[in-house]
Amino acid sequence: MKGVILGIAPEARLVDLTHEVPPQDVRAGAFLLRGAVPYFPLGTIHLAVVDPGVGGARRALIVATRSALYVAPDNGLLSLVAPPSEIVGIWDVSQSTHRLRKVSRTFHGRDVFAPIAARLVLRAPPVSLGRAVRSMVRLPESRPKRNGGRTIGEVLWVDRFGNLITNIAAADLPRTSGRRTPTARPHGSGRTGSFRTRPLSVTIGDAVLPLLAAYSDLAPGHALALVNSADLVEIAVNQGSAATHFALGPGARVVVTRG
Amino acid sequence: MKGVILGIAPEARLVDLTHEVPPQDVRAGAFLLRGAVPYFPLGTIHLAVVDPGVGGARRALIVATRSALYVAPDNGLLSLVAPPSEIVGIWDVSQSTHRLRKVSRTFHGRDVFAPIAARLVLRAPPVSLGRAVRSMVRLPESRPKRNGGRTIGEVLWVDRFGNLITNIAAADLPRTSGRRTPTARPHGSGRTGSFRTRPLSVTIGDAVLPLLAAYSDLAPGHALALVNSADLVEIAVNQGSAATHFALGPGARVVVTRG
Amino acid sequence: MKGVILGIAPEARLVDLTHEVPPQDVRAGAFLLRGAVPYFPLGTIHLAVVDPGVGGARRALIVATRSALYVAPDNGLLSLVAPPSEIVGIWDVSQSTHRLRKVSRTFHGRDVFAPIAARLVLRAPPVSLGRAVRSMVRLPESRPKRNGGRTIGEVLWVDRFGNLITNIAAADLPRTSGRRTPTARPHGSGRTGSFRTRPLSVTIGDAVLPLLAAYSDLAPGHALALVNSADLVEIAVNQGSAATHFALGPGARVVVTRG
Repeated sequence: MKGVILGIAPEARLVDLTHEVPPQDVRAGAFLLRGAVPYFPLGTIHLAVVDPGVGGARRALIVATRSALYVAPDNGLLSLVAPPSEIVGIWDVSQSTHRLRKVSRTFHGRDVFAPIAARLVLRAPPVSLGRAVRSMVRLPESRPKRNGGRTIGEVLWVDRFGNLITNIAAADLPRTSGRRTPTARPHGSGRTGSFRTRPLSVTIGDAVLPLLAAYSDLAPGHALALVNSADLVEIAVNQGSAATHFALGPGARVVVTRG
Repeated sequence: MKGVILGIAPEARLVDLTHEVPPQDVRAGAFLLRGAVPYFPLGTIHLAVVDPGVGGARRALIVATRSALYVAPDNGLLSLVAPPSEIVGIWDVSQSTHRLRKVSRTFHGRDVFAPIAARLVLRAPPVSLGRAVRSMVRLPESRPKRNGGRTIGEVLWVDRFGNLITNIAAADLPRTSGRRTPTARPHGSGRTGSFRTRPLSVTIGDAVLPLLAAYSDLAPGHALALVNSADLVEIAVNQGSAATHFALGPGARVVVTRG
Repeated sequence: MKGVILGIAPEARLVDLTHEVPPQDVRAGAFLLRGAVPYFPLGTIHLAVVDPGVGGARRALIVATRSALYVAPDNGLLSLVAPPSEIVGIWDVSQSTHRLRKVSRTFHGRDVFAPIAARLVLRAPPVSLGRAVRSMVRLPESRPKRNGGRTIGEVLWVDRFGNLITNIAAADLPRTSGRRTPTARPHGSGRTGSFRTRPLSVTIGDAVLPLLAAYSDLAPGHALALVNSADLVEIAVNQGSAATHFALGPGARVVVTRG
């Protein structure tokens, strides 16, 4: 992919965002994009390929929002970074004349998405690369559920430290009754000690963990939950691996309660 | 290696091709280069280090072809990207004065190959970096065998999705009798439904799999074979791992038959 | 982190040094830096984040030596690359106004260290980014011990080839009595055959291995020790994995003796 891009746009700056997306896991990819995209410069071209349907009927898209351009398969991968209110254009590039001359049926990252992204680096207008369309595929709603005072979600993926990342964002946490919410500001900038309500607890498997603000709020080896730097509830063991500690992974049920 | 290169050639553009080559596996490295090199711009300098003989008697080479420059150990790693008909020059840089001042016996990537490649980035002529030689080491023939209507090869390596990559290229598939071959064009651009002959089957372990064109030609979880984006027969499970499914890896025998 | 850096300093050249540091292992990080830093150009800005204390009380530092700038947590990570005699300045940037507007308590790499490093790329003087301080945290002495004619150390980490890297540097090897030391020059440039004293042996688990100069000094599959390219004693299996062969890892005791 990088060879193709540099052949077309030699001045392109290339950054690998992550190789931690579990194979074929479009939803994990969507959440990882959601955490990283806000930290890239305005106008960045995000080339995202988690593509279990490669070679089949799914379309290839350019999506423009107010702040970035995306090149990706039309499978929901952009659901969280391109909400309808932010989208300024969608183009289908599945049959673009700017694809490589030979298009394989197993590696569209190289044959379709890379040459299209390279043209965007050269400031080609999207309409010259494909045809405008009205909508894109969105992930089935994977938001956690609120039930009484509880929020019920699940583990999405395990990062390389063994932290269990859930689909519960700060805004999904159980609400207080007219009082301050704890540690709920974006990117976990809350401070411990500022609680004015009963603290939150997180249940996973047989364990009930406190929702704290930093790994080091407990001694090394102890398990806790926190709102992580991507604004998602995460189960962690200070200086250890929660995945090993709990022997749990993607799909495990996670419940946040007050008190 | 990158520190050394940038110290000599600050403007170098650096791309990591892969970290998936199994340790010491020169043959896997040769096949990975074969798949990637055609997609890089003309004149790219490929610095390739799979080097089980580091510190011993094997030479260090610059190899120039019509389209690229290579810097690599003389152990067969370039066998598939630099066929004799393509080579325009070979230089032995084992004793080059452009090596680092201190040369370790365990990391020639840093001490020999990186500084030589950096000089090539600065457009130093190869003859100024080493002495011209006539030949290089080539891998023992590792092509699959044709036997009657069958092609017999083996698994070379397992990629990070669990796909089993074989040494059988599209051109090695059993021939038809004067009729069209299926899905045999380079980079797998063939289309299903264009078969005019009996389809091909691939046997691995106890399983007989259809040779199809895309992962999604079968439902998720089903095993199949296809000619992949590097033009090699690959055993895959749609949205799964063939390595786990079959509990097989490098060296496993693979047979392609017609019908 | 790269998005943040490029947003501030679009011309920054970014190199990933390694992703092999075991999670939270500050000491392994310190040794890896020690091996790599000398090979980068003068004036390189090294942004190093192995940060088990993130979100707690540990400080964030800029450290300037005669040859490089470092941005890192104040936890000993720089112990081996910034000895007191080399340091020309230390600045505490924990509360720098150049941090991101929102600072998480779990990812200071992105929120603190990356924006500070980017300002250094733009040649901001360190004093404009933090306040000068006098000292930094250093690792507890983790040097091997000399006891009679023996040097006693331990395995620090396992590299991706399965080599066992120890904390024993060439200078720590048992001394000869007024005669030449073997293979002890920095970066392993010694030559086999130059021994004039009894050779060195390395004991790990139940095995006693010869200290040689190159992997290929024994036949494939045989275990040996050598002084590696980072100047550290390493236990290896030629074209194999010492970690698998010995079923040992970090913390394993290693003893070097003469004869």
